Amino acid sequence: MTTPYDRVALIGLGLIASSMSHAIRRAGMTTHITGTARSAETRRIAAEIGICDEVYATAAEAVRDADLIVLAVPVGVMGAVAAEIGPHLKPGAVVTDVGSVKKAVIEAVSPHMPDGVHFVPGHPLAGTEHSGPYSGFASLFDNRWTLIVPPQGTNPGEVARLSDFWRQLGANVDQMEPDHHDLVLAVTSHAPHLIAYTMVGVADDLSRVTDSEVVKYSAAGFRDFTRIAASDPTMWRDVFLTNKTATLEILGRFTEELFALQRAIRVGDGDLLFDYFTHTRAIRRGIIEAGQDTAAPNFGRVGTPEIPDDST
Amino acid sequence: MTTPYDRVALIGLGLIASSMSHAIRRAGMTTHITGTARSAETRRIAAEIGICDEVYATAAEAVRDADLIVLAVPVGVMGAVAAEIGPHLKPGAVVTDVGSVKKAVIEAVSPHMPDGVHFVPGHPLAGTEHSGPYSGFASLFDNRWTLIVPPQGTNPGEVARLSDFWRQLGANVDQMEPDHHDLVLAVTSHAPHLIAYTMVGVADDLSRVTDSEVVKYSAAGFRDFTRIAASDPTMWRDVFLTNKTATLEILGRFTEELFALQRAIRVGDGDLLFDYFTHTRAIRRGIIEAGQDTAAPNFGRVGTPEIPDDST
Repeated sequence: MTTPYDRVALIGLGLIASSMSHAIRRAGMTTHITGTARSAETRRIAAEIGICDEVYATAAEAVRDADLIVLAVPVGVMGAVAAEIGPHLKPGAVVTDVGSVKKAVIEAVSPHMPDGVHFVPGHPLAGTEHSGPYSGFASLFDNRWTLIVPPQGTNPGEVARLSDFWRQLGANVDQMEPDHHDLVLAVTSHAPHLIAYTMVGVADDLSRVTDSEVVKYSAAGFRDFTRIAASDPTMWRDVFLTNKTATLEILGRFTEELFALQRAIRVGDGDLLFDYFTHTRAIRRGIIEAGQDTAAPNFGRVGTPEIPDDST
Repeated sequence: MTTPYDRVALIGLGLIASSMSHAIRRAGMTTHITGTARSAETRRIAAEIGICDEVYATAAEAVRDADLIVLAVPVGVMGAVAAEIGPHLKPGAVVTDVGSVKKAVIEAVSPHMPDGVHFVPGHPLAGTEHSGPYSGFASLFDNRWTLIVPPQGTNPGEVARLSDFWRQLGANVDQMEPDHHDLVLAVTSHAPHLIAYTMVGVADDLSRVTDSEVVKYSAAGFRDFTRIAASDPTMWRDVFLTNKTATLEILGRFTEELFALQRAIRVGDGDLLFDYFTHTRAIRRGIIEAGQDTAAPNFGRVGTPEIPDDST
């Protein structure tokens, strides 16, 4: 097992950074890991559970001598963190990030990178609804995609090295253009998250359906929305504010389509509904065949047996 | 272990009926199970895998001598099935159903019930995105709610007997008024399903984001929508057409709220977004505390370790 970077600095010690630490250890890399977080409590926990060899109070200290610096903070503060660490980066260092938006991050971070430092943006498509240093685990990235999104002119050797690093953490790796990344993620992640947040908010707001009933009878459908809508508020606020154009475009398409289906319900057009639902079911099969989810019953939750994926 | 009904007839042999059969066997009931399905292939499979002691070509034959008849067909054909079996029901028999809509089912089925037969509607809040006789498993109802929704004047002793039967299949049991049931389910299940169908349809429709990309990068958010949107098309068409008023009302509330969040994104109101997302996260905690889902990472999918639900 090679060790692509001798010293890694994790800036921000939440779900992604702590999972990276666990995955680095699991891979058997001899990497020295430093880290920092804004909250003293998070730093204390990170030191206590050992996700960093050394925890520092400031990003400037944490990045000193680091070969790879991972910006694992909300997208909205990437620029400020980059400005803080810029003067302290060693020549030849690689800076990457794990933000869910790429164009805004590249615009915010790039101006602060000194000559001789390589900025290679990335985005691991993995997560849970949990956050904080306790929430990480080594297998988070296994068989998931990490997208490397290099701006024009990025050193190809450094793209290859970062890709190799992510593969050793368990991920599949692809490259993508920043604009295209932000559109694809608006479809597959950002719009769905806003929709889930909205539906959960509506449910809670209905006075005729008490909180306890919504919670109690959440088994079908709504339960999955609440999981998505439990994701980190700061992270998601920043995602929507920084991927505004693509998210609003997709949401516009969504409401247009929703109105068409609402109209079909109102006028009783069962054929339209049936055809629509048959088509979306086929997309699901594609995802299972692509290995991005399980066909196990009850959505693959623990405690239910495997069954054949035969739906006749 | 008591056996509330000596002879049970399952009309329709999909996910719910086949799971009921497995759960009846698991409970150690000595119940004799008959069944029928519209499709000859489904009947053949049901006989082959033994979910019925006897499989009949018609519902009229299947219900003969049955003490409990379970209507496990799409909501839109409940009335036709009730008309078919009405003349063949034995005096004192109990007819129940497992439909996701209750007011329309009561209106469609009740007129066909002869004197001396008890119609006690029910709705198990459990399911997967799979369908057909292969898809059932004994633990589907474990720790989930089954709602008994008796029309006014229903014999209380028969409500109690059916409730006892469902408890033996693993479910928790509650009673609810038909109108209220249909509103609660519009919030917790019907509207979320239509929204998920819509989002998956939109994703598929975008020519700039190819199918393969949507499938490949589905890990965050969208993947959960595709699971919901893979549910049985016939069943869901009928749900929307028969719970039209409540579903359209909730969808109206949903779009109103979605527009407010879209506006917040457009004008950059980060505080509104942050407060909204913080609130929805709290609802999620309520669901976990109510025992209706797991706090395990990666949404509790098989293959990931348990972690503390501490999200700081």
